[in-house]
Amino acid sequence: MSQFKGQHILSVNQFDRQSIEHIFTIADKMAPYAKRQKRTSVLEGAILGNLFFEPSTRTRVSFGCAFNLLGGEVRETTGMGSSALSKGESLFDTARIISSYSDVIAMRHPEAGSVANFAKGSRVPVLNGGDGANEHPTQALLDLFTIEKELLHSGNKIDGLDITLMGDLKYGRTVHSLSKLLSLYNNIHFTLVSPKALALPDSILSVIDNAGHKLTISDDLQGNLNADIVYQTRVQEERFDNKEEANQYRGRFRLNQKIYTEHCKSNTVIMHPLPRDSRAEANELDNDMNANPNLAIFRQADNGVLVRMALFALTLGVENIVDKYESQVPWYSTKHQD
Amino acid sequence: MSQFKGQHILSVNQFDRQSIEHIFTIADKMAPYAKRQKRTSVLEGAILGNLFFEPSTRTRVSFGCAFNLLGGEVRETTGMGSSALSKGESLFDTARIISSYSDVIAMRHPEAGSVANFAKGSRVPVLNGGDGANEHPTQALLDLFTIEKELLHSGNKIDGLDITLMGDLKYGRTVHSLSKLLSLYNNIHFTLVSPKALALPDSILSVIDNAGHKLTISDDLQGNLNADIVYQTRVQEERFDNKEEANQYRGRFRLNQKIYTEHCKSNTVIMHPLPRDSRAEANELDNDMNANPNLAIFRQADNGVLVRMALFALTLGVENIVDKYESQVPWYSTKHQD
Amino acid sequence: MSQFKGQHILSVNQFDRQSIEHIFTIADKMAPYAKRQKRTSVLEGAILGNLFFEPSTRTRVSFGCAFNLLGGEVRETTGMGSSALSKGESLFDTARIISSYSDVIAMRHPEAGSVANFAKGSRVPVLNGGDGANEHPTQALLDLFTIEKELLHSGNKIDGLDITLMGDLKYGRTVHSLSKLLSLYNNIHFTLVSPKALALPDSILSVIDNAGHKLTISDDLQGNLNADIVYQTRVQEERFDNKEEANQYRGRFRLNQKIYTEHCKSNTVIMHPLPRDSRAEANELDNDMNANPNLAIFRQADNGVLVRMALFALTLGVENIVDKYESQVPWYSTKHQD
Repeated sequence: MSQFKGQHILSVNQFDRQSIEHIFTIADKMAPYAKRQKRTSVLEGAILGNLFFEPSTRTRVSFGCAFNLLGGEVRETTGMGSSALSKGESLFDTARIISSYSDVIAMRHPEAGSVANFAKGSRVPVLNGGDGANEHPTQALLDLFTIEKELLHSGNKIDGLDITLMGDLKYGRTVHSLSKLLSLYNNIHFTLVSPKALALPDSILSVIDNAGHKLTISDDLQGNLNADIVYQTRVQEERFDNKEEANQYRGRFRLNQKIYTEHCKSNTVIMHPLPRDSRAEANELDNDMNANPNLAIFRQADNGVLVRMALFALTLGVENIVDKYESQVPWYSTKHQD
Repeated sequence: MSQFKGQHILSVNQFDRQSIEHIFTIADKMAPYAKRQKRTSVLEGAILGNLFFEPSTRTRVSFGCAFNLLGGEVRETTGMGSSALSKGESLFDTARIISSYSDVIAMRHPEAGSVANFAKGSRVPVLNGGDGANEHPTQALLDLFTIEKELLHSGNKIDGLDITLMGDLKYGRTVHSLSKLLSLYNNIHFTLVSPKALALPDSILSVIDNAGHKLTISDDLQGNLNADIVYQTRVQEERFDNKEEANQYRGRFRLNQKIYTEHCKSNTVIMHPLPRDSRAEANELDNDMNANPNLAIFRQADNGVLVRMALFALTLGVENIVDKYESQVPWYSTKHQD
Repeated sequence: MSQFKGQHILSVNQFDRQSIEHIFTIADKMAPYAKRQKRTSVLEGAILGNLFFEPSTRTRVSFGCAFNLLGGEVRETTGMGSSALSKGESLFDTARIISSYSDVIAMRHPEAGSVANFAKGSRVPVLNGGDGANEHPTQALLDLFTIEKELLHSGNKIDGLDITLMGDLKYGRTVHSLSKLLSLYNNIHFTLVSPKALALPDSILSVIDNAGHKLTISDDLQGNLNADIVYQTRVQEERFDNKEEANQYRGRFRLNQKIYTEHCKSNTVIMHPLPRDSRAEANELDNDMNANPNLAIFRQADNGVLVRMALFALTLGVENIVDKYESQVPWYSTKHQD
């Protein structure tokens, strides 16, 4: 029986290597459904409460699709205005009520710690879909899952990984969560490239340091991109009190095919949590990289569905019976060719 | 055959004791599905048009989940801005069109009478989910259903009930509708506690009076809370023309564990239509009551799903065949323990 | 095998008479499901990404219901604000990601050409649900389908049709698309009635002219409404740079029962792409026409579901196996009586 059955998924701090490997094993089993080679109705009749109190397209839809692909239904709430919260309702009450309607809840909220508070009132498992600058554990898991898959091509494993994290390392919560997860592995070389004002917070640096990993810190990409993985990020303008300060950093560290050719290894894998800011003044990851087979950003999105399917299956305790509810897919799908 | 098949549910005025008892009998049959002990797909392929032209989380999601739990799909519209109404479309036209897409419609709208107007254009049954300060019949039914269930613990029935309604009795439409339904029963003692300016409207007082029930009116909670049921309400600030006037009433009649101990019976049941306003200046029902087993507010929400499932089953004429489409629930649910 | 399998539906320019007739044959096969005489689950497990970056009720819900009626699930995104586009994401990236989650996408966007751009990034078929003043191919198809059905009553066919298009012929994209489709047929008489400033664009006039059809242009309805079909439109105020200019045209060409009796044939069919603007200053199609059996506007909406079901079935390659996944409808439906 899984340790995740009936549990909340709130923070990457919940995971150890063994539990991560278990999640990834289940995620692998989800691939045939995500690729529409088969379908499953194991969660037919179950309801996901998809609560997004902050704008999001990809994470919201990814959770919803993952649940649909297991056969379940999705009831969605988006925005703060349309919520009873605007009438003074506490998160506890909202949680108590929405959990009365749902079998599991995915939630995003702009305030750090809010999802954990919400979970205290919930009668069903809550999956944190991002709480402000704090945590985004499913993104961290899908990033790590992607790293493992991408390294397979070159016969490598996460142990011994050489990774460069670049851009807004202060506000980019995905970088914080990923750093914690990677710290559970052995012998990682972290290279951190950012403006000094957007450096990785000390609390995360301590985690890396305490786990005995190698750390290189720079505000220059020169010599720092020849890693196995380069993880680029967007300047999180919405987290800055001062938008003008954000603007002075947008566009500071760009990545494009020319820079890739000059500074990366021939098989350096490029990742990004998305969305990438494609406006001229930012453009931290140029579209001219789209043709580069080492650009893994869209495979990350695909992997996100697998990881979220795995977490739903685990928290609802159906991870071993998904294939008992299988049937054939009668419609044509372009996904088979991906 | 049910009197509700193919009918709109617009007002509590449609109901008599017999029809209410029939709805409650069907609601009881829905419990195993709501508790995830079994699932049913009786409405597989049916579509609910869930139209919320006014912000709502709990009522909207409750309708949606109730429909999903019967196996149906939900197509949702929220807000006025995203609607053709902003291009000058009449409610009649919207009704004609949306009813072309749906098998049944649930609707909330800020204007009194709008849902009944809408129903005139609809080709499928319309369930009123609240029209301004006018009606909210499904809330009234779930409140009454909850009262019946809560009284069972002490071996009592609705006939002979001693109930205190308190707070904003002027704008709180749930209080109006509930008063009308209770008036169908025998020998009720209504105690009304509110600021004079927020008193129950004369039209509702007449209904109570004409049915021969006992009425106590006060602007003081002293001596007025030792009832079987105390139904507390939120000051409906959104219905006030003058927000400052609303603010002077918020927090006027509070209920907390200390007041409960002093003024209520040992088994007085506390209800509230929710959301409760937990901000310090209002806080009409304190969180320190959450541990009190007589606080029924979350059971009200659970009962709302049962009552709405019953109304969908009845209006679509499937109330007697729900169990023919039953199957097992293969996933783990914390709801079994509730 | 259909030419539409795996293809985008972006523009009416993709269609010839043969392909239109094929779509209509499939649309006819969808009627029993839309009328709830039977249900089908052929797309059970499939996901529609319903992306509406511009307000819409009817088109959005019509696409969603059409997909539900084939057994599929719908994941919806509405508005620009709730989207990663507001963080600078390109349409290409959004397409790449959302298509990773979906089996097919329906999309509306305020910018002309945006849906075609989006389709370049999509890995699944994209159906254009309207891109600004440019195209709205599914509306054009449902209009043409309706014309064919309505003419059947009088034993006529589209070849030889006498049609009057009136109102805002400049910004009304449905009129542009419908004119192109009708031009594929033989011997059509187009009568165009509009203020000179809102005339049909030259590019569309050329299409009609090059196909050798008869053309009458007027800014007066006198003598111009005795057609087989009168297609009335709303002044598209949201497309005008100058709202005051729009207002001077609203209400200029009205249609009501009095005008119908005076100017139309006894069996002239009235169509309108909806929504009709029922505010007094516009009211281009009066409610007193609702009782007229030749008012086809609500049948247009019904037909929209059939046409969209057909397009989903065709693009996903299930058009010939829909009935293999049939079952009985156990609930009561008023639609049988329509």
